[in-house]
Amino acid sequence: MSSAPVSTARIANPEFQARLMDAEAAASLIKPGAVVGMSGFTGAGYPKAVPLALARQMDEAREAGNPYAIKVWTGASTGPELDGALARAKGIDFRLPYNSDPLVREQINSGAVQYFDMHLSQVAPAAWQGFLGPLDVALVEVSAILPDGSVVPSSSVGNNKTWLDRADKIILEVNSWQHEALHGMHDIYYGTALPPHRKPIPLVTPSDRIGQATFRVDPSKVVGVVATDIPDRNAPFKAPDASALAIASHLLDFFQNEVRVGRLPASLLPVQSGVGNIANAVLLGLMDAPFEPMTAYTEVLQDGMLELLAAGKLSMASCTAFSLSPEAAERLNGEMALYRDRIILRPQEISNHPELVRRLGCLAMNGMIEADIYGNVNSTHMMGSRIQNGIGGSGDFARNAYISIFMAPSTAKGGAISTIVPQVSHVDHIDQDVQVIVTDQGLADLRGLSPKQRAEKVIANCVHPTFRDQLADYYARALRDSYGKHSPSLLKEALSWHQRFIETGSMLAK
Amino acid sequence: MSSAPVSTARIANPEFQARLMDAEAAASLIKPGAVVGMSGFTGAGYPKAVPLALARQMDEAREAGNPYAIKVWTGASTGPELDGALARAKGIDFRLPYNSDPLVREQINSGAVQYFDMHLSQVAPAAWQGFLGPLDVALVEVSAILPDGSVVPSSSVGNNKTWLDRADKIILEVNSWQHEALHGMHDIYYGTALPPHRKPIPLVTPSDRIGQATFRVDPSKVVGVVATDIPDRNAPFKAPDASALAIASHLLDFFQNEVRVGRLPASLLPVQSGVGNIANAVLLGLMDAPFEPMTAYTEVLQDGMLELLAAGKLSMASCTAFSLSPEAAERLNGEMALYRDRIILRPQEISNHPELVRRLGCLAMNGMIEADIYGNVNSTHMMGSRIQNGIGGSGDFARNAYISIFMAPSTAKGGAISTIVPQVSHVDHIDQDVQVIVTDQGLADLRGLSPKQRAEKVIANCVHPTFRDQLADYYARALRDSYGKHSPSLLKEALSWHQRFIETGSMLAK
Repeated sequence: MSSAPVSTARIANPEFQARLMDAEAAASLIKPGAVVGMSGFTGAGYPKAVPLALARQMDEAREAGNPYAIKVWTGASTGPELDGALARAKGIDFRLPYNSDPLVREQINSGAVQYFDMHLSQVAPAAWQGFLGPLDVALVEVSAILPDGSVVPSSSVGNNKTWLDRADKIILEVNSWQHEALHGMHDIYYGTALPPHRKPIPLVTPSDRIGQATFRVDPSKVVGVVATDIPDRNAPFKAPDASALAIASHLLDFFQNEVRVGRLPASLLPVQSGVGNIANAVLLGLMDAPFEPMTAYTEVLQDGMLELLAAGKLSMASCTAFSLSPEAAERLNGEMALYRDRIILRPQEISNHPELVRRLGCLAMNGMIEADIYGNVNSTHMMGSRIQNGIGGSGDFARNAYISIFMAPSTAKGGAISTIVPQVSHVDHIDQDVQVIVTDQGLADLRGLSPKQRAEKVIANCVHPTFRDQLADYYARALRDSYGKHSPSLLKEALSWHQRFIETGSMLAK
Repeated sequence: MSSAPVSTARIANPEFQARLMDAEAAASLIKPGAVVGMSGFTGAGYPKAVPLALARQMDEAREAGNPYAIKVWTGASTGPELDGALARAKGIDFRLPYNSDPLVREQINSGAVQYFDMHLSQVAPAAWQGFLGPLDVALVEVSAILPDGSVVPSSSVGNNKTWLDRADKIILEVNSWQHEALHGMHDIYYGTALPPHRKPIPLVTPSDRIGQATFRVDPSKVVGVVATDIPDRNAPFKAPDASALAIASHLLDFFQNEVRVGRLPASLLPVQSGVGNIANAVLLGLMDAPFEPMTAYTEVLQDGMLELLAAGKLSMASCTAFSLSPEAAERLNGEMALYRDRIILRPQEISNHPELVRRLGCLAMNGMIEADIYGNVNSTHMMGSRIQNGIGGSGDFARNAYISIFMAPSTAKGGAISTIVPQVSHVDHIDQDVQVIVTDQGLADLRGLSPKQRAEKVIANCVHPTFRDQLADYYARALRDSYGKHSPSLLKEALSWHQRFIETGSMLAK
């Protein structure tokens, strides 16, 4: 994008300086068919200059009759300069482990791109395990290369340590737009191994530092170093709407009651929160709640958490990436001294590690597409077949959380879709891993209940009134006519709400 | 059952001796509506005398017009003297976390019993967390009470430590049928806590001992001690049939190839195996395989593992319970000196702990009811609504395993049911947690594949020939007509195979 000269002052080691080149030259080192491990996690810390240059090369090659696509591994989602640009160039034929780019999504759902949707904590171990095959190139944005050759991570850590260690060749984008105070905020744990050599991970509170501030990078593998100053491109902040505020209010009441009856400490337990409108509403609700000092052990740090940190309600936050609006990113960069010691960025295999999530007892709060009356949750597939983004870290947290909470407005598409359905069209979280369901209508605490007890509570508390009678009618008939009465089900109708939406544009029966 | 006088020599502490009473007197201490935490895990170490006496009291009360039911928590399944007898007396109104008794199953599926189906590793933590409510009585079989008042566990550990610590009152059955050499074979870890006080669990190999050999029991909570000598009642061993042998053969070929290409060590990684015909076939197949010395980190020790231990192919096995045929139990008891130091019995929260399963890198081998073309697995529900047993520990292992394998014959009910279906009628294991599917037809290694790549492999390798064309036809039409093409699905047909079975007795289209 930027064609002005970019500072190379952040590249302070001669061996790395010797590999300095422009983005076009670096991109040309990535060959058709290559498997490329890229940095990037929710719009933070993804490479920008080289993917743009690569997309131009792909366009030229394709126009010359030589299709040119690669396999892309990342941390999670990235930005338009990466997924968007490569997809426009028809340059991705395989993608893992998470995507939120609209064009890539369209290509996955049209069948053009093969997508492997993974638990985010398992990507790095899987890359070592070998069944994913070799990793040809690591293309990683960093914020500085120090005189001794150690490398300061950028605004996300993701799988970068693994890509750098595992790849045959390395290309680094050194981004001087990133704040130099990032140096010291990361905690890169080098204690992982493959079994039988795995050891306990020595983290017992979210604020523990168990690693080092920088990546180790073998300079002999570095084939290109590119200087950039392109900003991260995050989604703008949307003020919570009435539905999000209602969800937040139900959830805060629930937490207050859990504290009152002695099932949660007064400062809660480490919170994990997804991103978006509802997550921010919950976090903003915590601003006025009596729980403090809280901590966060989570995947991404979003606007709401920054505010909680600034107010001292949150004493610290551990994450693998920032996921800030442009305004919040500016606020962070402008007041870095305030935040610097209260934020730790870790590899995603640590931020999401089941061992740690269970040990810390995280309160997991994630969004969903739909839930069924028995508490199964669909986080990924529209109408059972169209992928939205991916499972992300929701499974890492939900299975091991102290309390696993899923939230969504009770309807979608202007009321045409009910979030609560007879049977989810795809399962990402089985009923055992879903303890609390919250919609704007209310909250259902499903802990310790049998399927039928769960169904009664979900129908009573969570369904939008437009769909309540329709769902109660289904359930009553299922109770009467089901093959088994443990989880009553009418197989002919269980997915009929989704089919009706496909055919008529609404799940509502006429 | 037995009315001959039973030895009380195993009750060597005077405080416990003072509570000695017969089973009837002990049973009368369990009041209608009580929540009772019982021992028992796959037919091993469950209380026998008191439940039988309790069932008689329930019958009498019911006949007198006073319904008398309790809530039963266990380790997992038990024996006919417990679940069977209480169910015959209509004495169970709530049950967790796993059941395999036919009559209890019938009562759950008719709607008479509320059943809460849980991950077995999560039962003990949930009992402490509080949402399950108070535990009135612990009714636990043990093998001895030592002079110092410490208590030697029986042939299963399950949740007994937690029941003993958590319950208001304790009733102990001291079973002198259990071998006295059990003393020393258990490893009871007392380091668990609720967050924020959880610490790393210091186990790094299956053979590590991290706890103590006996339970601590507060004598002031003990209201009854009953002497028994009733044997454990385990299922008889069935010799593997042709289908089980074919599955074992495909799986052993897979392991050999993984070793050959360097993705598994020559002695494999700790194996976890379910119970039954197929599991035993795989274990017996390992007798002739070149992997040694193997270890096991598993839930239950079944006949096949005992044989591997005897042959020295398995250097040790860690589990939470025995699950032996009567012949194998006799063999164990007769040659205890041979096995004593090679078997460790642990609480099920440790035997199944996700932290440990992932650290050790278990090779998880579990049975299933059905799988779909995308690799989702149903372990629990027949036709989506009838519970079979429960999820047990399969989720604990599958999610965290180094390789997660699910196995079943390609058909059931004499060929009327296809194990491979367009969409499973209930999901227990999401596609992300299912890496290898094996039927008698073949093996599908699904690691690293997109949904469509998985579907092609499952259809090619695992489906019975009778159903192959029918499934290939479904998939071809789904590819063409599905709403989304990421996980192609025809919602009107996805569950039609199950509906056809309910209506016609066969999944096969005419």
